[in-house]
Amino acid sequence: MTDGPKSLVGKKYPAKKHAQNVLKHLQKKNLLKSKDAAFFVSGEDLVLYKYCDQSQPFRQNRYFYYLSGCNIPGSHVLYITSQDKLILYLPDVDKEDIMWSGLPLSKSEALEKYDVDEVKFAADIKEDLAQINKAYTTDVNQFNEQFKTFLVEKDEDFFYALDESRLIKDEYEIELMKHAAKITDNCHFAVMSALPIETKETHIHAEFMYHALRQGAKNQSYDPICCSGETCSTLHWVKNDGDITPDKRSVLIDAGAEWECYASDVTRCFPINGDWSKEHLEIYNLVLKMQTAAYDLMKPGANWEDLHLTAHKVLIEGFLELGIFKKEYSVEELFQAKASARFFPHGLGHVLGMDTHDVAGNANYSDPDPLLCYLRIRRVLEPGMVVTNEPGCYFSPFLLEDVLNDPEKSKYIDRDVLEKYWYVGGVRIEDDVLITDSGYEIFTEITKDPEEISKIVKAGLSKGKEGFHNVV
Amino acid sequence: MTDGPKSLVGKKYPAKKHAQNVLKHLQKKNLLKSKDAAFFVSGEDLVLYKYCDQSQPFRQNRYFYYLSGCNIPGSHVLYITSQDKLILYLPDVDKEDIMWSGLPLSKSEALEKYDVDEVKFAADIKEDLAQINKAYTTDVNQFNEQFKTFLVEKDEDFFYALDESRLIKDEYEIELMKHAAKITDNCHFAVMSALPIETKETHIHAEFMYHALRQGAKNQSYDPICCSGETCSTLHWVKNDGDITPDKRSVLIDAGAEWECYASDVTRCFPINGDWSKEHLEIYNLVLKMQTAAYDLMKPGANWEDLHLTAHKVLIEGFLELGIFKKEYSVEELFQAKASARFFPHGLGHVLGMDTHDVAGNANYSDPDPLLCYLRIRRVLEPGMVVTNEPGCYFSPFLLEDVLNDPEKSKYIDRDVLEKYWYVGGVRIEDDVLITDSGYEIFTEITKDPEEISKIVKAGLSKGKEGFHNVV
Repeated sequence: MTDGPKSLVGKKYPAKKHAQNVLKHLQKKNLLKSKDAAFFVSGEDLVLYKYCDQSQPFRQNRYFYYLSGCNIPGSHVLYITSQDKLILYLPDVDKEDIMWSGLPLSKSEALEKYDVDEVKFAADIKEDLAQINKAYTTDVNQFNEQFKTFLVEKDEDFFYALDESRLIKDEYEIELMKHAAKITDNCHFAVMSALPIETKETHIHAEFMYHALRQGAKNQSYDPICCSGETCSTLHWVKNDGDITPDKRSVLIDAGAEWECYASDVTRCFPINGDWSKEHLEIYNLVLKMQTAAYDLMKPGANWEDLHLTAHKVLIEGFLELGIFKKEYSVEELFQAKASARFFPHGLGHVLGMDTHDVAGNANYSDPDPLLCYLRIRRVLEPGMVVTNEPGCYFSPFLLEDVLNDPEKSKYIDRDVLEKYWYVGGVRIEDDVLITDSGYEIFTEITKDPEEISKIVKAGLSKGKEGFHNVV
Repeated sequence: MTDGPKSLVGKKYPAKKHAQNVLKHLQKKNLLKSKDAAFFVSGEDLVLYKYCDQSQPFRQNRYFYYLSGCNIPGSHVLYITSQDKLILYLPDVDKEDIMWSGLPLSKSEALEKYDVDEVKFAADIKEDLAQINKAYTTDVNQFNEQFKTFLVEKDEDFFYALDESRLIKDEYEIELMKHAAKITDNCHFAVMSALPIETKETHIHAEFMYHALRQGAKNQSYDPICCSGETCSTLHWVKNDGDITPDKRSVLIDAGAEWECYASDVTRCFPINGDWSKEHLEIYNLVLKMQTAAYDLMKPGANWEDLHLTAHKVLIEGFLELGIFKKEYSVEELFQAKASARFFPHGLGHVLGMDTHDVAGNANYSDPDPLLCYLRIRRVLEPGMVVTNEPGCYFSPFLLEDVLNDPEKSKYIDRDVLEKYWYVGGVRIEDDVLITDSGYEIFTEITKDPEEISKIVKAGLSKGKEGFHNVV
């Protein structure tokens, strides 16, 4: 399994196709002034920590990877549109470095590995670009000596074309993402099963990373979020340093492995000892309902805002049933008053791809509407988009403080009922989903059925009594 | 164990003492023009990846940590010498950030936690520094608006004083480093014991990281180096992507957990199935002898170069016994010819502290002597220094290529004998050592006795047959 999806054996990451896609987007919007153009992107290089001889962890520039499929630090890529020619530049060979790090890829090995027309060394770049500057009209980009500063924010048209192209995933990318999701499924299953040896949030973190690494995923898509009890209400809890004591009841883990620069992003919640507490299960089932309601609307042409707002309505209905919202108010009234905003303060989901919060979602963080300002997708769904479906419901003392102190906002809430839910902290359920021609396909298969989750946790607990021993 | 060494409970990281030490070093060398001075250092802040909303992994500026003991991104520290006053500036509170990440430390909590005289917020810095600029002669440093660029390479005197101060570890630092070493010991033990489930270098990597994280060590001091067979000859092999097949025989793992910004750095080698092959064991015992010879000389006043060169002589003697070097040459002749340089191409060790290759070692990478140019310590040992003792012996086709092609260099080598050793790849044994008043104290306790190692690996193998199952 560490060698990647079997479906991709013998195939190359479609870098050339990606370059062509970017070009098409530029042409479609008439952003090229001439037929001849070229674009040049530098990958990331190794960077030392300040005042230290140690390299920072390497993370490839996603735009570069998209146009090359190459994860080698210090590489560059050039696409010459009129010749439909993609050239990869490898870093110049440093003899000293071989002593420490081993032999680098040769030009011919690189040509065989990557979907490019030619492989050269970085030393050739200067002359090649000078040639192009004479021969081609460099509409989109301007070359300069500092290749690093080449792909800059002001090249808006280039970014636009790259982002729109990256938004729609091709078959190869989908296979990579499915593989990342599969690894992540296994990790979440391991975490649920390993509960007997988990007495700290750090243990959950360790368990997840361990199983990802064993499956060959050296990088996490993002820092794992491992919470228990009230810390589940902190959306990006990454301290992961709390004790998991039985009185806390709830665990939330939001973590996803990365596979060859492609992300997965999955959240699961479960009860610490396998037995759902009343309130925890109520909130869990409500969030599951929110997610289902979003799926029901998920297909090409659907506006993501509608899915998000529908999830809010389901939350409101649920809170009315549970008595957290007072029954004297109608769903519509509560929706108009945005009474659910601080209980579900983030967006329903985001575009997923090479970045966890991938490009081209068109978020508008300055939207004055509290229900929409954190929404990371503000566009109509199209086949080939991969998104997360991740509704949540939280009881955060910090977030609810001004709601509860404002009579106009707190009048909707029955405080006595609310009181019973603080200990849950929060629930989020998150899956990775491909938009297909007719609807959607969920990548993540780890169960979210509360009964099944309960069984898995309990099976781990019973196994724990016999077999496991804590090595620390 | 995740809560740190018991000996430090109730104690604070001695930041104030560190500031005073730095001042003493400045005074000792007459680097202050007036009695009044101040120094200001900014910690690292969170930095986003380019074109992405995700933060890069955070690693605190070691100089800042040394003067504050504070690991909070975006903090600053000011030491006013005439008042002997240490002020910590926390980042200004960002309300938006609390929603995502939880409540930050308050000023009073910080004052209780850190060994500083006052805690303020970053917003106060500008005025405080303006005050000081009027009241004090800022001999060592010059304040400017860009606090980030304050501690710059050109402040050589300040760096000198910081480095000399950091070189000698105090009791608190020693306890942190012992704790890191203890965690690392456990991890190495787990790797040796877990061999039944290790069939890839990645698995070893995962095993080490897992046990470090479970013990609360979220950061590795450096990227773990996990090699098997011939890749053991690549000094900084971090691909860790090879298969561990029985024909490879040897495993080398160089990995160390970090504890509260302090490093450990340990290498162990072992045979894959517990049975040492003849050549592997011969080289292992030789490297162990090199390490012992270095320990025999290790005490205050000893020059590290002597230890390093003694290890080379032991290697030469060993190669003569094994027949790799031709017996017609004497130890002295081979030593003068630097015949061992490419078989032990790195230094005997380095200063260890907050950085893996810590400050003040006074290396001279442009030294023309191939035996000394990579040596990271070029000074006399003093009590309180922590160093690694890490001799090695490698059979690297790349490193030996020009030796073997040069009759003047290859004449010392019996190629037929050498031929039998390539498969070993390399052996390195590395421990972390404190220089004491009378000699040294080794922090790392995981065994390096070849017989004991053999027993541990075999015990894992037999347990494997009964209990372990591969989850992937």
